[in-house]
Amino acid sequence: MSKVLDNLEKIDASYIQNFPSSRKIYIQGSRKDIQVPMREITLNATSLRDGTFEENPPLHVYDTSGVYTDPNVKIDLHKGLEPLRAKWIEERNDTEQLDDFNSVYFHKRHDDQELNALRFPNLKKPRRAMSGKNITQMHYARQGIVTPEMEYVAIRENCNLEEARKNKLLGAQHKGEHFGANLPDVYTPEFVRQEIAAGRAVLPLNVNHPEAEPMIIGRNFMVKINANIGNSATTSSIEEEVEKMLWSTRWGGDTVMDLSTGKNIHETREWILRNSAVPIGTVPIYQALEKVNGIAEDLTWEVFRDTLIEQAEQGVDYFTIHAGVRLAYVPMTAKRLTGIVSRGGSIMAKWCLHHHKESFLYTHFEEICDIMKAYDVAFSLGDGLRPGSLYDANDEAQFAELETLGKLTKIAWKHDVQVMIEGPGHVPMQMIKENMNKELEDCFEAPFYTLGPLVTDIAPGYDHITSAIGAAQIGWYGTAMLCYVTPKEHLGLPNREDVKEGIIAYKIAAHAADLAKGFPGAQIRDNAMSKARFEFRWYDQFNIGFDPDRAREYHDKTLPVESAKVAHFCSMCGPKFCSMKISQDVRDYAAKIGAEDVTIALEKGMEEQAQHFKETGGQIYM
Amino acid sequence: MSKVLDNLEKIDASYIQNFPSSRKIYIQGSRKDIQVPMREITLNATSLRDGTFEENPPLHVYDTSGVYTDPNVKIDLHKGLEPLRAKWIEERNDTEQLDDFNSVYFHKRHDDQELNALRFPNLKKPRRAMSGKNITQMHYARQGIVTPEMEYVAIRENCNLEEARKNKLLGAQHKGEHFGANLPDVYTPEFVRQEIAAGRAVLPLNVNHPEAEPMIIGRNFMVKINANIGNSATTSSIEEEVEKMLWSTRWGGDTVMDLSTGKNIHETREWILRNSAVPIGTVPIYQALEKVNGIAEDLTWEVFRDTLIEQAEQGVDYFTIHAGVRLAYVPMTAKRLTGIVSRGGSIMAKWCLHHHKESFLYTHFEEICDIMKAYDVAFSLGDGLRPGSLYDANDEAQFAELETLGKLTKIAWKHDVQVMIEGPGHVPMQMIKENMNKELEDCFEAPFYTLGPLVTDIAPGYDHITSAIGAAQIGWYGTAMLCYVTPKEHLGLPNREDVKEGIIAYKIAAHAADLAKGFPGAQIRDNAMSKARFEFRWYDQFNIGFDPDRAREYHDKTLPVESAKVAHFCSMCGPKFCSMKISQDVRDYAAKIGAEDVTIALEKGMEEQAQHFKETGGQIYM
Repeated sequence: MSKVLDNLEKIDASYIQNFPSSRKIYIQGSRKDIQVPMREITLNATSLRDGTFEENPPLHVYDTSGVYTDPNVKIDLHKGLEPLRAKWIEERNDTEQLDDFNSVYFHKRHDDQELNALRFPNLKKPRRAMSGKNITQMHYARQGIVTPEMEYVAIRENCNLEEARKNKLLGAQHKGEHFGANLPDVYTPEFVRQEIAAGRAVLPLNVNHPEAEPMIIGRNFMVKINANIGNSATTSSIEEEVEKMLWSTRWGGDTVMDLSTGKNIHETREWILRNSAVPIGTVPIYQALEKVNGIAEDLTWEVFRDTLIEQAEQGVDYFTIHAGVRLAYVPMTAKRLTGIVSRGGSIMAKWCLHHHKESFLYTHFEEICDIMKAYDVAFSLGDGLRPGSLYDANDEAQFAELETLGKLTKIAWKHDVQVMIEGPGHVPMQMIKENMNKELEDCFEAPFYTLGPLVTDIAPGYDHITSAIGAAQIGWYGTAMLCYVTPKEHLGLPNREDVKEGIIAYKIAAHAADLAKGFPGAQIRDNAMSKARFEFRWYDQFNIGFDPDRAREYHDKTLPVESAKVAHFCSMCGPKFCSMKISQDVRDYAAKIGAEDVTIALEKGMEEQAQHFKETGGQIYM
Repeated sequence: MSKVLDNLEKIDASYIQNFPSSRKIYIQGSRKDIQVPMREITLNATSLRDGTFEENPPLHVYDTSGVYTDPNVKIDLHKGLEPLRAKWIEERNDTEQLDDFNSVYFHKRHDDQELNALRFPNLKKPRRAMSGKNITQMHYARQGIVTPEMEYVAIRENCNLEEARKNKLLGAQHKGEHFGANLPDVYTPEFVRQEIAAGRAVLPLNVNHPEAEPMIIGRNFMVKINANIGNSATTSSIEEEVEKMLWSTRWGGDTVMDLSTGKNIHETREWILRNSAVPIGTVPIYQALEKVNGIAEDLTWEVFRDTLIEQAEQGVDYFTIHAGVRLAYVPMTAKRLTGIVSRGGSIMAKWCLHHHKESFLYTHFEEICDIMKAYDVAFSLGDGLRPGSLYDANDEAQFAELETLGKLTKIAWKHDVQVMIEGPGHVPMQMIKENMNKELEDCFEAPFYTLGPLVTDIAPGYDHITSAIGAAQIGWYGTAMLCYVTPKEHLGLPNREDVKEGIIAYKIAAHAADLAKGFPGAQIRDNAMSKARFEFRWYDQFNIGFDPDRAREYHDKTLPVESAKVAHFCSMCGPKFCSMKISQDVRDYAAKIGAEDVTIALEKGMEEQAQHFKETGGQIYM
């Protein structure tokens, strides 16, 4: 029995306990094996003035936590998750199970007996496209095929929207400002297909990661967030990374990137993939660099290619590839204040300078496409020249690379390979929109996937906030996925609490963007929260929010007794001072005089009613 | 000796210790007694590749912490701060020291011997305008008089800008998008005068608060932030509130509002005012309500008037007054999801309904102006009908009140009384700009002072973030001051740590807005930070930021040894993987081939230089 196995034997309850008053539900699609998960939050009834109660319908929210929050599923991290897509993949009859793994590096690791203690047990053989077949979701979409995955995400994006809309108050929503996005009233599988076919959306699912629950990334869908995890040369273990993945998805991470640069990268990734219900992204050049002992100029196409195959056969769903760092752009960064801040970008820049050549990522791009489409790995074309300071924002180097990413997008699309485009970085607010507009134009509406941007450089320790401000805005303008930033950014490696802080800050940014764009049903949860707030349903207020634990903890710090959670006031103003209570009086009063609108109320003569108000409204909150 | 005195005898060092590598400097104005404080941050030298060093000029930042961070000043909370404006006020010869206090309530408290233990010692008699004199800064401005206060804030807003601009790199700044703001290249006393005269800026300083350091609030100045403190019925003491005030201003609060609704409001306020270096605002209706035992309908003009005089004679610098809650608007709120959420608004709404009358705040507005101008108290016209949920944003009630606030502004300006306008609340992003535009139009560019807005309702426990997102945007669009929100909003009373979290989140929002608008010199601190970052000056990175303590703490959590703080790498990537190091190679290389611009670099033939690069750049970061 290995050390890793031992440690992962007893999973901490904090990773798998369900959220308060919540249960996992599944909505079935057109076939029985399309079972789309959601979290259903049960709400308390509203107590009316006449002593009766009015039920509040349960709330359905998007759920990234996988079966970990389903008490009916037995969690065993040694076995990994059930391959929910296995049948769909097999049915398509265009992939085959290989006899063996194809990367040299896989075998090197596999033959090393000293690694046995670290290995994920019961490795499955990889699957790959049959010769001559293209198995990407984009390919299917362009053939007019609606896959089960597409139907799954359509149901998932709707999040039981039509049910919720039956309640007029909950379904009410302000008109969005969509800046050219095309948001439907309700998602259909056909809409999903069209968006993928057009390249406006990515459904990142490797055939070797059948455990993942399908999700979609595109400007015409809910804004998604990514959480970065990964070990470094100095710290962290496999267990910690698996736990960070679980923790990230529990709190709302839609995808997770494993950015490990330390020890046992291959084995760490295997454990993460086999237990991850969300797509996993990587930056393969990191591992390639480790393979050449950290010497950038020793990197070769062959090492890189082997790394792509190694990771594709494990099941990585999207690869960040910095193919836009062209030789001619590198000197443009010499005038910068902070040079190149992307690790991948700086590695490739160094390689280009040393060899005085275009990078192998650029020159071998079509061969990379061939690998991607054999497993359905999506591109995340890396912004190796993104600005690392406000000073460098929107400069020549950044935009030159962006244009190249657009050209590469066209090449990838020729192969029906899915593409998203990575974006900055550090950008002051007035320059954010230019980034979005330029990406939409230069990259033909391929989904934009941005890091922040941070809107100021001067708040180390709080960069989850500096960047959530920029993320909310760029999400509104059209960015499809926001890569989180933790409070430790620029300073150190995030721990569990930092990961959660980063996730929640980005859930806020993404949701704010959904509301502003007019994503269908975005306001339902806000309306439910506000109704609970006005009606002093404290438990519901805790449970509807992004972090029920913290909401309750903060409430209880001031008013710890249980009775305060049914009290019609809170610690801020106390019982006498409560504006919510007073405005309930106002509403009751208006209702009693039958004031459908203000004009009528005034015409009815409010003075005559003043006595009535005194009798009914004056003392109820004492 | 009183209990309060005892407890405030030994001030905790955390409130008064200076920031690391920082010292208080004073820039002298046209007369010797105009001494404008700034924080000077000393930076380390840059170590160049040739082994020599290049000095980095010290950085000057806006400083709200008062003399508490001046080691040359002896702090004695029992004596209060020195009245730095006393001479300026006396010189104008338009005020007189009164023989006694004029409010009934003052005497009631003063005659109560049981309160002796709580009282601030050595109370000074109040000062008031001589009969027939108008002593507001707006009045002086409109007479063409530049007061010492105006000169003080001009120097303060510049923050030694012209010195910093001598360094081209540090002085560089992206063009702002000002949305109609009129930001000068450098602030002059005459510009300040014009802005105050036009009503576009407020310089909130009561003649009875001569201890405060002048500051200005207006869309054509640095965006300011306010911190709310104050006790409630259940918790907190005078000591705690004084400490919260000190803590808020230490971290960057430009003004502080004392929103106490609990015990000993009068005495608490006295301690705060005598020790506050920033303007203090209050909501007088809160205390008035306490005086009538919390029964809104028992409020009278006489009780309110006495409260205004009581507080004006103590030295409160601005009053939130909800005079825009008109009887006709109250029924408009009946259709809302969350009714009236402003405490002041709901109190007045209840009063209006009960009596079926316009509120005494509205009907006695000109008499209120007469009181304001006798002490130079500024109006903060309260938004009693602000939305408490996204659902209610930008509704009829909210905007009806805003129009009324505009009409009241005109009346106040007729009296030369300074005015700012309070704003929402809960507003989704796409509806924020409408708030700002409407305020500018309806209220004739009187400074907007907003709470957030929160851009979603569903993140209790994180509303400093939901609201900082909205605050950054509305600040960019033209809001002059942002009222902070702490993580405890909607849940409980903030403690010291919550206050700091709220302050820093709002410093970020305000600074992001300054950058986006193009506030002169806004980018200097960012540039200095980014240069320090690129040059691995870790101590400087900590010290330049908003929170040096946390930055250092986070860094040290991963790499605690002292040597790591001079290391040319960090814990995120480790020594081999550092993009910053690699891009220094790129820059050196470009410099060595004399690449002033890219074209030249390429023409020079980079290939020929590749060998040179290998010799010089390859191994330096090992």
